[in-house]
Amino acid sequence: MSVDDATLGKMAQKLRRHSLESTAEAGSGHPTTCMSCAEIMSVLFFDEMRWDPRDPSGRDQDVFVLSKGHAAPILWAALKEAGAITDDLLSLRRYDSPLEGHPTPRSPWVRVATGSLGQGLSAAAGMAVARRKDGAAGRVYALLGDGEAAEGSVWEAAEFASFHGLDNLCATIDVNRLGQSGPTMYQHDTGVYESRLRAFGWDAVTVDGHDVAALREAFTRGRRGTGKPLGIVARTFKGQGVSFMRDKEGWHGKPVKKGEELQKAVAELGTTEVTIRVEPRRYPAAAQAASGPPTLTPSYTLGQEVATREAYGTALAKLARVSPAVVAIDGDTKNSTFSERIKEVAADRLIEGYIAEQNMVGVALGLASEGRIPFASTFACFLTRAYDFIRMAAYSRPPHLVLVGSHAGVSIGEDGPSQMALEDLAMMRAITGATVLYPSDAVSAERLVETAANTPGLVYIRTSRPKTRVLYSNGEYFPVGQSKTLRSSARDQATVVAAGVTLPEALAAHEALAREGIAIRVIDLYSVKPVDEATLRKAASETGRIVTVEDHNVCGGIGDAVASVVSGLAPVTMLGVREIPRSGKPAELMKAHGLTAEAIAAAVKALIAG
Amino acid sequence: MSVDDATLGKMAQKLRRHSLESTAEAGSGHPTTCMSCAEIMSVLFFDEMRWDPRDPSGRDQDVFVLSKGHAAPILWAALKEAGAITDDLLSLRRYDSPLEGHPTPRSPWVRVATGSLGQGLSAAAGMAVARRKDGAAGRVYALLGDGEAAEGSVWEAAEFASFHGLDNLCATIDVNRLGQSGPTMYQHDTGVYESRLRAFGWDAVTVDGHDVAALREAFTRGRRGTGKPLGIVARTFKGQGVSFMRDKEGWHGKPVKKGEELQKAVAELGTTEVTIRVEPRRYPAAAQAASGPPTLTPSYTLGQEVATREAYGTALAKLARVSPAVVAIDGDTKNSTFSERIKEVAADRLIEGYIAEQNMVGVALGLASEGRIPFASTFACFLTRAYDFIRMAAYSRPPHLVLVGSHAGVSIGEDGPSQMALEDLAMMRAITGATVLYPSDAVSAERLVETAANTPGLVYIRTSRPKTRVLYSNGEYFPVGQSKTLRSSARDQATVVAAGVTLPEALAAHEALAREGIAIRVIDLYSVKPVDEATLRKAASETGRIVTVEDHNVCGGIGDAVASVVSGLAPVTMLGVREIPRSGKPAELMKAHGLTAEAIAAAVKALIAG
Repeated sequence: MSVDDATLGKMAQKLRRHSLESTAEAGSGHPTTCMSCAEIMSVLFFDEMRWDPRDPSGRDQDVFVLSKGHAAPILWAALKEAGAITDDLLSLRRYDSPLEGHPTPRSPWVRVATGSLGQGLSAAAGMAVARRKDGAAGRVYALLGDGEAAEGSVWEAAEFASFHGLDNLCATIDVNRLGQSGPTMYQHDTGVYESRLRAFGWDAVTVDGHDVAALREAFTRGRRGTGKPLGIVARTFKGQGVSFMRDKEGWHGKPVKKGEELQKAVAELGTTEVTIRVEPRRYPAAAQAASGPPTLTPSYTLGQEVATREAYGTALAKLARVSPAVVAIDGDTKNSTFSERIKEVAADRLIEGYIAEQNMVGVALGLASEGRIPFASTFACFLTRAYDFIRMAAYSRPPHLVLVGSHAGVSIGEDGPSQMALEDLAMMRAITGATVLYPSDAVSAERLVETAANTPGLVYIRTSRPKTRVLYSNGEYFPVGQSKTLRSSARDQATVVAAGVTLPEALAAHEALAREGIAIRVIDLYSVKPVDEATLRKAASETGRIVTVEDHNVCGGIGDAVASVVSGLAPVTMLGVREIPRSGKPAELMKAHGLTAEAIAAAVKALIAG
Repeated sequence: MSVDDATLGKMAQKLRRHSLESTAEAGSGHPTTCMSCAEIMSVLFFDEMRWDPRDPSGRDQDVFVLSKGHAAPILWAALKEAGAITDDLLSLRRYDSPLEGHPTPRSPWVRVATGSLGQGLSAAAGMAVARRKDGAAGRVYALLGDGEAAEGSVWEAAEFASFHGLDNLCATIDVNRLGQSGPTMYQHDTGVYESRLRAFGWDAVTVDGHDVAALREAFTRGRRGTGKPLGIVARTFKGQGVSFMRDKEGWHGKPVKKGEELQKAVAELGTTEVTIRVEPRRYPAAAQAASGPPTLTPSYTLGQEVATREAYGTALAKLARVSPAVVAIDGDTKNSTFSERIKEVAADRLIEGYIAEQNMVGVALGLASEGRIPFASTFACFLTRAYDFIRMAAYSRPPHLVLVGSHAGVSIGEDGPSQMALEDLAMMRAITGATVLYPSDAVSAERLVETAANTPGLVYIRTSRPKTRVLYSNGEYFPVGQSKTLRSSARDQATVVAAGVTLPEALAAHEALAREGIAIRVIDLYSVKPVDEATLRKAASETGRIVTVEDHNVCGGIGDAVASVVSGLAPVTMLGVREIPRSGKPAELMKAHGLTAEAIAAAVKALIAG
């Protein structure tokens, strides 16, 4: 394929026209954001990238991530012009169209959902590192805005990419000077971006982003095998091509009006009669590791004392042994989360993400889009750092993506509140479509790791710091959406629902109450979402009273999950953290926050007393 | 005060000794992390900083933020040696001691809680910018670890500080080469940090962090008035001072054993017999703006159509007019959140935070610690970006800190899921001690803004994009923890609990059902947390059925808040978002996700039918 510069320039104008027309038709959207990157998109899609418009899988091809997701209209336009999609561009933002306002995988060409800025580069880096590990040749291109370069996550991704020598990654920053509500921090001072990229270990070059020839030359730098990712700082104008929009404030996220205004804008673009046939270009097929369904068989002894975080590490390593797709990434906590156990299988199956949790989740998402089954782990409290990335990961509908948070709750003890996850269950339950698992012993931990690897989409596993005794035999299974009723009788006067470190407390409360002649049911709610509505409702009806107990804030976690399905059937007393915790011994803290067997027994008795 | 280098060096050794002894006594903690920064702490607290050990307020003094919070033991040691605290250092990490494992405001000398890494610099920058605006002379010193420099938020803070020319800010990076689970990304390559600081607009210098004279000289650079913040890159060794710990892996977060090991370590430190009297040094008192209790009087007309986000902007400006302490910070969305209205009062009362939400919240916390009443706003979905900062802000117990999230839920329409907050209520409810408010009309929005400014601690206000009609008269009040019962009769067969954009739908359902002879109660749950338990329980008992409806994920928000207090009294049907949304018109999306009057009426009838 040898397209000349003038033809690519004309295609840029055509992409501008599509962007203007589709947003005008929708009555909303971001045409000026598209117009600044029209030459970049034209050069990428019709010259630089080696891709096959017939195959959105990305395998053995270059792939593209639109980090500045509000430029979606020009992505749809480029795909349409290349023959990759047949959707009507004028259906943009309509309920029945896959051409959404920001990219989502409702279009098969979107590998990761974007629109929350500063996230695309991490996913792109994840794809690039996966390809590097596979020896796959396809390159990864990301397009960023200048406004989003203010997000620290961009620099997390930048340091990750250079640290791993990802010269198969190319990021273009579209420096169009204007943000949503005013000029960006550095406006057209492109030197700031270039010096930052270099300081973060990248090769970098600044070009006129409306100069097709300059862009083409800049992209060739990326193929030189420098050992460094390439950053192209493209000086552009928002609204380029239309005089009354170009470089003007007040045009962010604003379409032109259909009719006269649109006609005037389109007229300024000149002739847009051009078509470029994209020849399918692919790289030699890279070998892909076959991966059967991962299965595990726990080998613990009843009563053995094992922390679920340690059981996680053991299970991860076992899983990695049977499934080549399984990889781990951790935020410099691998010795605490026990993710480091995967190194026993292969050192390169653990990616050290350092202390940069947003990028860790973004990289995991990129790995997922390349066919991996990634397990990303850190202290559960630090997953809050990545909540926006987690949210967007769910919208990206990854085949598999497992997040693992260790050191949940006040039971970590002396380190104090900054290290205690008390919000993670609430955070993950609120993610649409996520699965939330919370093992209480080593056997269930191992089974739930296996389950997570076989569950589509986003899965969260919460593990605990203290050792807990093995409650289940190795043959026990833990299906998603079910629970385990550990104690039950026809005389039960209440049901206690617990998980993790509170389950042993619930069992102890059962013993203590039994000595007083009070029978209670005890349920292990290992699947917090989806929750076992049938069993909980039955328990509520049969026992008439419910106590929930969780090492988590009393809002949004197990208590709410239970109350939401047993309403009307039984009163629910929720035990959970209500005050800001402090340093102290785990047992002191469990007691202070009312999570012990004594507190549970007292709550049961209070309910019975009415 | 003229302490010589040797005395400061000896004090460093004494601080090391305290750190070793207190962590050994506690049986946990991070002595080696303290030992790398002993000279830095000695020089800061006993020479560089002008402070008054009798007054923890920080007013007219230099202040200090320990961003590498796991070095808390050496902070306590320095404060004790300076005579600022009298607590027993050996009480470290005990339940009854304010000397927690990571700094929290249980010690009055801690301005912001740290321990989740990468957050201290943002708070320090917030303090520095507040002092700059006041014309106050006191400087702000932050101490960071090298591991946490991998957090993107550090670079958000860095760009913010240089953009605002904060040469009253000095950050020292303690480059001790070792993270928790292995070496840091760049180990002792201090040039990386120096070049990054420079690329982010800072003055920067690299020194031997164990050389007292070099440190003293480096700190003087910060007082030259360069217009740039100063970064000191200090090359150090983790565990410095004790041969068997120094620069060794495996010693992170590990105390020496009491007895022989401790004795051996302490012996290596040599004599630690030194005391340095810290002379109280203060700057001339800066004027402080007097601020009475902020009060507002709304002036809307019943039936008027106003978006709550716009009413927020109006109220913010009115509040700023009567209260000099009120300031706003926004993440390049000021024209959408309407925070820009505060500029009508004074342009410098709005800080543009650009697209860096973590830093925005951290700066707001720093502003709060300097006596401001900060309102930090962006799209509600992007507050997820700052969840870890929000969590830590709550632990910092700020006098006032208001977060405002606009564009909540699917009712934003065409922009699609990336811009729709569906997790924010869950996220904020799970924050211990936070207040969560959700106005439905302009009057309640204005009243809740006033309330937020008068409520201690962290307050979240959720606003909506679409216009909604004014429901309340201007004289109405909206106390925290209460609700408004808008429709009620003795014949009510169900209660509908709504807020925000679903409240008009609930009222419409009331009308529609009334036409069919079905009376329902309608409650406006403007205070989502704390929730109005008494009114909800009464409604549950009297009407026997509850329907909740929220433009939020069905987990963790209004439905859960209601179900958690009415358990046993009435069945609750929860209407909320259960599937990943898409682009579309607001009305289409409200309908698709079952949030309309029709859906509410159907849910009521289904409940009645049993």
